[in-house]
Amino acid sequence: MFTVSILGASGYAGAELVRLLSSRPDVSISALGAHSAAGQRMDALYPALTGRIDLVLESLEEASAHHVDCAFVALPSGEGQKIVPLLLKNAKRVIDLGGDFRLQDTTLYEKYYKHAHHEKDLLREAVYGLPELNKSAIAAARLIANPGCYPTSIILGLLPALTGEIVEPEGIAIVSMSGISGAGRTSTVDFSFSELNDNIRAYKIGAHQHLPEIESVLTGASGRTVTVSFVPHLVPLTRGIYSTIHARLCGEMAAADILKRYRQFYREAPFVRMREQIPQLGAVANTNYCDIGLTVDVRTRQLIITSTIDNLLKGAAGQAVQNFNIMLGLPETTGLL
Amino acid sequence: MFTVSILGASGYAGAELVRLLSSRPDVSISALGAHSAAGQRMDALYPALTGRIDLVLESLEEASAHHVDCAFVALPSGEGQKIVPLLLKNAKRVIDLGGDFRLQDTTLYEKYYKHAHHEKDLLREAVYGLPELNKSAIAAARLIANPGCYPTSIILGLLPALTGEIVEPEGIAIVSMSGISGAGRTSTVDFSFSELNDNIRAYKIGAHQHLPEIESVLTGASGRTVTVSFVPHLVPLTRGIYSTIHARLCGEMAAADILKRYRQFYREAPFVRMREQIPQLGAVANTNYCDIGLTVDVRTRQLIITSTIDNLLKGAAGQAVQNFNIMLGLPETTGLL
Amino acid sequence: MFTVSILGASGYAGAELVRLLSSRPDVSISALGAHSAAGQRMDALYPALTGRIDLVLESLEEASAHHVDCAFVALPSGEGQKIVPLLLKNAKRVIDLGGDFRLQDTTLYEKYYKHAHHEKDLLREAVYGLPELNKSAIAAARLIANPGCYPTSIILGLLPALTGEIVEPEGIAIVSMSGISGAGRTSTVDFSFSELNDNIRAYKIGAHQHLPEIESVLTGASGRTVTVSFVPHLVPLTRGIYSTIHARLCGEMAAADILKRYRQFYREAPFVRMREQIPQLGAVANTNYCDIGLTVDVRTRQLIITSTIDNLLKGAAGQAVQNFNIMLGLPETTGLL
Amino acid sequence: MFTVSILGASGYAGAELVRLLSSRPDVSISALGAHSAAGQRMDALYPALTGRIDLVLESLEEASAHHVDCAFVALPSGEGQKIVPLLLKNAKRVIDLGGDFRLQDTTLYEKYYKHAHHEKDLLREAVYGLPELNKSAIAAARLIANPGCYPTSIILGLLPALTGEIVEPEGIAIVSMSGISGAGRTSTVDFSFSELNDNIRAYKIGAHQHLPEIESVLTGASGRTVTVSFVPHLVPLTRGIYSTIHARLCGEMAAADILKRYRQFYREAPFVRMREQIPQLGAVANTNYCDIGLTVDVRTRQLIITSTIDNLLKGAAGQAVQNFNIMLGLPETTGLL
Repeated sequence: MFTVSILGASGYAGAELVRLLSSRPDVSISALGAHSAAGQRMDALYPALTGRIDLVLESLEEASAHHVDCAFVALPSGEGQKIVPLLLKNAKRVIDLGGDFRLQDTTLYEKYYKHAHHEKDLLREAVYGLPELNKSAIAAARLIANPGCYPTSIILGLLPALTGEIVEPEGIAIVSMSGISGAGRTSTVDFSFSELNDNIRAYKIGAHQHLPEIESVLTGASGRTVTVSFVPHLVPLTRGIYSTIHARLCGEMAAADILKRYRQFYREAPFVRMREQIPQLGAVANTNYCDIGLTVDVRTRQLIITSTIDNLLKGAAGQAVQNFNIMLGLPETTGLL
Repeated sequence: MFTVSILGASGYAGAELVRLLSSRPDVSISALGAHSAAGQRMDALYPALTGRIDLVLESLEEASAHHVDCAFVALPSGEGQKIVPLLLKNAKRVIDLGGDFRLQDTTLYEKYYKHAHHEKDLLREAVYGLPELNKSAIAAARLIANPGCYPTSIILGLLPALTGEIVEPEGIAIVSMSGISGAGRTSTVDFSFSELNDNIRAYKIGAHQHLPEIESVLTGASGRTVTVSFVPHLVPLTRGIYSTIHARLCGEMAAADILKRYRQFYREAPFVRMREQIPQLGAVANTNYCDIGLTVDVRTRQLIITSTIDNLLKGAAGQAVQNFNIMLGLPETTGLL
Repeated sequence: MFTVSILGASGYAGAELVRLLSSRPDVSISALGAHSAAGQRMDALYPALTGRIDLVLESLEEASAHHVDCAFVALPSGEGQKIVPLLLKNAKRVIDLGGDFRLQDTTLYEKYYKHAHHEKDLLREAVYGLPELNKSAIAAARLIANPGCYPTSIILGLLPALTGEIVEPEGIAIVSMSGISGAGRTSTVDFSFSELNDNIRAYKIGAHQHLPEIESVLTGASGRTVTVSFVPHLVPLTRGIYSTIHARLCGEMAAADILKRYRQFYREAPFVRMREQIPQLGAVANTNYCDIGLTVDVRTRQLIITSTIDNLLKGAAGQAVQNFNIMLGLPETTGLL
Repeated sequence: MFTVSILGASGYAGAELVRLLSSRPDVSISALGAHSAAGQRMDALYPALTGRIDLVLESLEEASAHHVDCAFVALPSGEGQKIVPLLLKNAKRVIDLGGDFRLQDTTLYEKYYKHAHHEKDLLREAVYGLPELNKSAIAAARLIANPGCYPTSIILGLLPALTGEIVEPEGIAIVSMSGISGAGRTSTVDFSFSELNDNIRAYKIGAHQHLPEIESVLTGASGRTVTVSFVPHLVPLTRGIYSTIHARLCGEMAAADILKRYRQFYREAPFVRMREQIPQLGAVANTNYCDIGLTVDVRTRQLIITSTIDNLLKGAAGQAVQNFNIMLGLPETTGLL
């Protein structure tokens, strides 16, 4: 029986972790931690979990004191770097779902996240937890930086095209549409139902904190300097991200050939499904899959990539469990199908 | 040219008043007032109004100082009774969209609204602004208590049946479903998109502040003591209320006969549409209509009434404009079709 | 390994059965059958299932020929009685999710379903598959009539109150709100997105085919003649049913005492959760739970019951799997948590 | 009093025309025409219109026989070219909301619309009805090709940048998100609520019939060969289009300067609102406005344009009424504020 703790269990990603892990016969949840919700029962916060979890949320400090095989951190960016050093005294492994350990370049971190970084040694040790890119490093890691939701959909969509020199690395135009749960469990007017229903809006154009993550991971993987323009949008649904990417083709190439290259690249990735039809978000909602479609626009010599995930699963809690499985030597798909 | 002011212009009902009144050639908006939003441009708060209104929100005190033909008050309950005495010094007429002047019995007001009432003289003077019930009193009034959204749909649905002794006045079972804008422009987690999308929940069962309004208006109009059980629900749409009412029939009566009685009752009500088909909320959204359908359930001897309105129009700002028209001697439908 | 077949796999309930059963290590799906979709791959119809099922839909006749431990029938009403006799030659057990075997009184069946009934012997043998009412009969049955979605939410909400003589059996007023998937995979204008989004409408008032099911099951269970007025509504969400029920109390009784009686009644029902707070549909969506809340309206002496389920799970495929588990001697919750 | 007829009144754009024109004191609707809906009352098809229009739908032939100042055609592409020659015998002016008279190059028409074109003389005469581009030609025209919904949002977003040589004309990447009403009043499974709610999908990538319209209008207006990659998406809302456009800047230029150029370009366009904040679809829903925002991505030297309209108003019926106003010498905004 593997023991785990979840810090930041009161947020949506934390609650998904509880849901996924509480239904596993091989996992025991030792502790749940939260900031302002400490002292409440988890199933009072999330009535959906009634009958599945019998724990009261502890303070972050208390929850960090439990000795566990793996601690999950689902806290806002800036909080992770405070708690992880403490956690690593008692937890054999840590998976941080926040942004604190994803950018090796702390200048970028400080520019986009607006915090200073105080844990540069831990940062150097952290492994970027995208299993389709880093499986063996993940298996050996002590600290995982679980990828952001937008980057997961975008990086999976672009990896084979950039590493395979199918598209040019510069000036890639990315438009993503996200369900509202991506903003977390918030209480601002801007995220109220009446403001977002029947509405669409772009936000943080060219300034989103996931932008440097996308560029640095793709640059690192392809060995070429990748630059992207990234425009996220809010659309009126709860779960899911749909990314549509325009990249210039390096040369003439048929869609069928590119598809073959992608299938080859992902031949051992159980959660990436290459699609011959244009993918739909509805087919990945409530799953850990990433569905990817490819279209060649011959007239403008561009490759158009559509890539879709559930932001709370493959974009957060599901991917964290996938990393957990890999770290503990279990089949990657355990508890995720 | 009639001059008006709107206090509480930053909320949804206030913004609807601005939209409705700013498009009229015969009305000039002299002032907009708000509490915390004072100092902002109206079209910065509501980008939809850009090009239609050029005013900055004043404080409630400043906005009350303008001499106008009519002041509209769209403030939370408890605030109306504070500002109306002040307003009446400068405004010839006042229409309060809040709950402060709807209940002549202040014990009920205090029980359901949790405020004391300090303006009992004004309360006595106030006319309940349901045009289908009180048109001539409205025409002569100085202070109008504009009806609540739920009560508008429910009272219009029941009035002919109760005044015509078609149904028993006791134990009427009312289920209403409301769009989320009914809760106002709020910033609590409970009203965030992610909590309400794909969700339904009843709330304040038997305890909603609109309950005594429904009972006292129907009791007053029918001369019989009306008691209702009222269960409001939130459903995932922005605008509109749908009320489904079960009332016991006094005797055997065909649906067609009841329909005839309703049509007779509403023969001079331009905004009530009696339906032979079951009404749909979509047909009244963004209009000032109330659509009503009638079904007799012979097996249980009940009349089932379905009644639907747009909560921000016939349930708030539209009805206020209808009252304004009547008070100023204009055709009732001016600016509302 | 238990073998199963699913007839009517192309509809929403059928696809949920495939999803639930394909993820079980103890179940093997032998065949999928469909009418017009025969010849297509299941994962072409439902891209969400890609990687989880590798079958092509057969014709209903072909699919019926497989020897299996249990056949599931998810066909429109009227089709079940045609295929079940054939199926029972090769399947040890049959669970019919349609309406053909739910009403022992064929006059009612013919009145509400508009078909003649040609399998009266099988009808007599069929067991109504509500585990909370009929667990031991289900365990011994060969043919299960899986309950309707509305009836499941309503009967579970009323059973303890009626069998315990807490409420009067006559004139119970029921309002239900349903997500659109309850209408099945349809192609009429009335069920298009543009017609149903931002809309609410009641339908089939007092005439819905689930009405006699509700009355006859409750009458049978309580030994008293139960009559209800049932008003179903469509609301803009995909999955779930929320039922709000008004029933007259037999005598004065505190909500807390009634709650205790309900808890006692459901003490061995793992999927019924009695709630102290008013239940929310969101807490049961994508689960097999039924959440129930109770409020006493002292003023009108009524018990108000709110009961909510996922219509495709506890209201269809999930309950069918629960019945399958019971029939095969497995823990009731297998594959459903 | 101007007389009008509306052919294709049973579709969404037709019904919006009825709603807009029936509320005008200066317009009288002489006839409504439809194909399969002929013989029905308009307000039976659209209960929202009850009390506003008292006409029965005639056949297209009958409706064409009325002598009117202007006939509106809201029929599927391919139908317009059949009926317009007939119409022009009795109608002084015709506004076609379909695609038949938008593309002067009939090869493109035949390639993208899959019909032959049989009215090349009329095609040559037709004026593309984008008032912000062609106001004086519209005023003098007899036949207007009302622009497509996607092209309206995209062309208005790009016009000043292309005519002002701010951006390169080639390889512009356009992602549009559309509400479902854009697909018309359809009855296919793909457009049912259950398939589209909680879902996003791209469609017709690089093959949409609006693509040649976008390119040819922009090429004509700018005198440079414009090529675009156009990816439309369906998102779960009813009304509205949001287009996000990536175009390469010709040289370094500050966003503020570009905004100034746009404001200058649109100084006499009452329905284009240049935004300093990123625009929201919600602010243009149910209006005839087009809201446009501009962001410069310095890192990739691209101009990112966001442009949003209500697809049924500025993208169809509202723009048609705007054209009608211009043709008849009325203020452009009559009946549209």
